[in-house]
Amino acid sequence: MKISLNDLIRPIHAEFNTFQHEFEDMLKSHVFLINQVMKYVVAQKGKKLRPMLLLLAAKLRGECTPDTYRAACLVETLHTATLVHDDVVDEAETRRGLPSINSIWRNKVSVLIGDYLFSKALINMVHLGKPQLLKLLSETSDRLVTGEIDQIDRARSDTMTEEAYFRMIDDKTASLLAAGCQMGIMTTSSEEADWQALGQYGHNFGIAFQLKDDLFDFEGREASVGKPIGLDLKHNMVTLPLIHTFSKIDLREQKRIKRALSKGKDKANQKMVLELVKRTGGLDHAKQRLQEFSDRAIQSLDRFPDSSAKHSLTQFVEFNIQREK
Amino acid sequence: MKISLNDLIRPIHAEFNTFQHEFEDMLKSHVFLINQVMKYVVAQKGKKLRPMLLLLAAKLRGECTPDTYRAACLVETLHTATLVHDDVVDEAETRRGLPSINSIWRNKVSVLIGDYLFSKALINMVHLGKPQLLKLLSETSDRLVTGEIDQIDRARSDTMTEEAYFRMIDDKTASLLAAGCQMGIMTTSSEEADWQALGQYGHNFGIAFQLKDDLFDFEGREASVGKPIGLDLKHNMVTLPLIHTFSKIDLREQKRIKRALSKGKDKANQKMVLELVKRTGGLDHAKQRLQEFSDRAIQSLDRFPDSSAKHSLTQFVEFNIQREK
Repeated sequence: MKISLNDLIRPIHAEFNTFQHEFEDMLKSHVFLINQVMKYVVAQKGKKLRPMLLLLAAKLRGECTPDTYRAACLVETLHTATLVHDDVVDEAETRRGLPSINSIWRNKVSVLIGDYLFSKALINMVHLGKPQLLKLLSETSDRLVTGEIDQIDRARSDTMTEEAYFRMIDDKTASLLAAGCQMGIMTTSSEEADWQALGQYGHNFGIAFQLKDDLFDFEGREASVGKPIGLDLKHNMVTLPLIHTFSKIDLREQKRIKRALSKGKDKANQKMVLELVKRTGGLDHAKQRLQEFSDRAIQSLDRFPDSSAKHSLTQFVEFNIQREK
Repeated sequence: MKISLNDLIRPIHAEFNTFQHEFEDMLKSHVFLINQVMKYVVAQKGKKLRPMLLLLAAKLRGECTPDTYRAACLVETLHTATLVHDDVVDEAETRRGLPSINSIWRNKVSVLIGDYLFSKALINMVHLGKPQLLKLLSETSDRLVTGEIDQIDRARSDTMTEEAYFRMIDDKTASLLAAGCQMGIMTTSSEEADWQALGQYGHNFGIAFQLKDDLFDFEGREASVGKPIGLDLKHNMVTLPLIHTFSKIDLREQKRIKRALSKGKDKANQKMVLELVKRTGGLDHAKQRLQEFSDRAIQSLDRFPDSSAKHSLTQFVEFNIQREK
């Protein structure tokens, strides 16, 4: 049965609304330009997956507190900051060769708006005032950035391995999801075993989430997203299916594939690579790992009694496997 | 007599070396690309004014502690992060219209390296573990960014006033100098009055420092810096001398000046504006304010007994007034 996001957030319906308002309030500023850009940021409306999971995690052991909302805002702010900084580059690329003064201004503003979001996240961390949280978050923020730079570095130097891939997606995706879930439960439970369990849930869910995202590059997303099915190896970011395939073929064939992919979005080349990845079990391998991490995410909730929040967290894992965008 | 930076840092000669080593160590990473860029950042070698003042502030009440060095690294890291992010834009501009893929990569890397530095600063903050420091620094980091965005916003919307100018330079320059000096003394003194005095010193010195920098746009720097004397109104950032002049002339003349300046680095136009700013007392006004803030910076050290560190902090104020780059 197809799981809908609306069903999943039913146990935190009111809490999620409260969060949305606090998030919007938090981003307000006395500077006109900041408010202008923030309206745009709010209007873009991401899925807000991280605060959803954080609120559900908190509900496993009680009712959300002011600290829960603060933590939810923090985690979404940090995530948005990384997205805004990613945009700086993407914009520059789509305008390749023809940047206007306007687009330069926008770059400067994007960089600063990302920094503004980081500093708002920092202020919220300090307000939360819990040393364990601060340690967790400062390390997470370090991992987010290091993971991104590591990915660029490996793409350039052509040194991606399965081990490096998993460390990288842990850093750039799973670490913040783990920290978010952990922060959620920390606001309603003082048991360290609870914190660890949610850290594990977030970590495993996060890895599964990124694996699913990376599979889209090979299997496409549903038409509604507007992205054609096919191989989209952005900036030569080599992900698990291809890493697996490379381990199954000899050096000469590896070189042939890399040459083919370096030619950009050539349909025939893409089809050839896709067939090879399928034939050598690259897709199956990635799907198997996706299932493993999903199972582990669900297992890490074992210690909690049944509740609608627990049910939703379990279903979220299935939702990720099913999702088509 | 001309004051040299070497004389000023004599009381913290050994401490400054220790700081330099810790700073370089702190920036190391297991990611190759990060180390590569960091070597470049370290090689660029700024004046390191902020850690110098912080170390001198600490020495007012005792010997530097491991926390003093951590704070010095933190403040320089935060400052470097803002410089790296500023570079993202400056690079884009000097290459106006002709960005290579290379320069795009560098943009992406610059943004992420700035974020990396921010996250290193955050980790150091958390290690310092003092709630007052965390609060101070999170607010400072917010002010740094808000100040930058406010400046862009006002340049665009043409709404700069003397009051707004002073708030802006307080945010973008003085706040971090104030926080740095305050952090320094907090590592060797537990007296709140000491903290406040150093906050005042850093604030007043910071304003004076920015006023001096802004005066260079009208009076030029020494030949060795390679910047020609003349008006350089970067991105229409209107600073105090011109703000004062605008308050002395009528609307029609204001419009004429704005038109002249919008024509870029036209020599004749620049000369005309410079003459007008001189004639209407814009330069004298800015120099007078520079002297006022300098005097206040020195006064805020009154409560401390004479020492070589106090002497240096006092001389630093004079050094700023004298400096030609």
